[in-house]
Amino acid sequence: MGISEVKIILVEPAGPLNVGSVARVMKNFGLNQLVLVNPQCDHLGDEAKLMAVRAKDILETAVLVDTLSQALQECRHAIATTGIDHDLNVAIESPRTALPWLLETAGQPAALIFGREDRGLTNQELNYAQRFVRIPSCSEYTSLNLASAVGVCCYELSQSADLSGSNKSPTQNPLSENPLSDPLSELAPLGVVESYYQQLELLLLDIGFLFPHTASSRMEKFRQLYNRAQLRTQELAMLRGILRQVKWSLRSKNNRQDL
Amino acid sequence: MGISEVKIILVEPAGPLNVGSVARVMKNFGLNQLVLVNPQCDHLGDEAKLMAVRAKDILETAVLVDTLSQALQECRHAIATTGIDHDLNVAIESPRTALPWLLETAGQPAALIFGREDRGLTNQELNYAQRFVRIPSCSEYTSLNLASAVGVCCYELSQSADLSGSNKSPTQNPLSENPLSDPLSELAPLGVVESYYQQLELLLLDIGFLFPHTASSRMEKFRQLYNRAQLRTQELAMLRGILRQVKWSLRSKNNRQDL
Repeated sequence: MGISEVKIILVEPAGPLNVGSVARVMKNFGLNQLVLVNPQCDHLGDEAKLMAVRAKDILETAVLVDTLSQALQECRHAIATTGIDHDLNVAIESPRTALPWLLETAGQPAALIFGREDRGLTNQELNYAQRFVRIPSCSEYTSLNLASAVGVCCYELSQSADLSGSNKSPTQNPLSENPLSDPLSELAPLGVVESYYQQLELLLLDIGFLFPHTASSRMEKFRQLYNRAQLRTQELAMLRGILRQVKWSLRSKNNRQDL
Repeated sequence: MGISEVKIILVEPAGPLNVGSVARVMKNFGLNQLVLVNPQCDHLGDEAKLMAVRAKDILETAVLVDTLSQALQECRHAIATTGIDHDLNVAIESPRTALPWLLETAGQPAALIFGREDRGLTNQELNYAQRFVRIPSCSEYTSLNLASAVGVCCYELSQSADLSGSNKSPTQNPLSENPLSDPLSELAPLGVVESYYQQLELLLLDIGFLFPHTASSRMEKFRQLYNRAQLRTQELAMLRGILRQVKWSLRSKNNRQDL
């Protein structure tokens, strides 16, 4: 549950200087897991390595994936950074308030997500996260460079890890401190949550609650609701159980009808 | 005595990308006075401007001087940053502890001094400062990029200014602070939530997901989940819509079966 469990996920980064700078500042603050979602630049080219200096190992071990959803498969906690106003109906928190939560996953990976240099994250991508952070900046020029934003967040994470001792003390008893070590309150892996959303969408289309042209915007509302609640494994099992039972009921009535 | 009274002094910076990035991150956090002591690169060249983006004005108004002593002429408070151990017999503080002091100069300028990318500040230069700051970093790679170091310090300064109320942004959108003031995020009245729980329970009994003797303990789990999420009126309407549609689907299949 140290700071090294936190993955930095960059979605479609386009500037190799930025990616190199991100690698360096990650290593400065004790993070080492970099994930690049469909990168638009060469993260192993000269420019990236120039800025990484002694953090080239972070570039070389970076994981490349096609979609944000893949990047989040194993993660329990995910926070998205957002620089501009979105019409998402979610609370935006400061790094100092929200980021310590990424260190509370009891040995499971957590993710901090950064969007494209020019356009940030899409609403769809934002909906994969459970919490949202904006770095408070001056109204005259709110848009931070990607590497500066990552730097500030990694710094805050490392400050928080130092303060809580979660990065140091191996003798601390995690059970007494961390309610998440209770299996009943263990957060559901985001990959399983995602597959639930997909099954739910199919069922809602099937029963005519959703229509194909409005499905994704409606589903966004559900994602927001359940992400806010931070679904536990046991709760997700229950929600999936209901889906199965509704499908079974519909099918069995159909079958009887077919007799 | 706002944050804009704080000068950022770079001693002999050699990387134009760094100087450009410094300008940008200064503007992001409300600082605008950049002083370059005997710069070793072109701070108005293409590379610097590339990284400054919309903070080229900071580069253009930067003050150039020959020595650190000149740069500090008007300043009341000066803090030097140091990345490596010096044999100076001084206390090294964290940014969070020391930087707020720069905001206490009652309208007089204050200075935050950064050394060369490769060698930092000389002992002689360090002696111009009254206090000394080191950004805590990981022992594996302690050396931060110049722009990252400036970024972290400007961020800490702006956090400190915000907390002390000396740098309030008039354009801040209160909605982003308090999502509940948005009508879309109005909390659902608890009475309506309760009637949803009861309808849900009836349906779940009906489709055989719940059994009478376990219904109430199972329903407790749902209550916990949805209460944690603090259901909005709009979300509750959606959840009720699903219930209706599932019931309708089950009934219509029954009806067809009855034909």
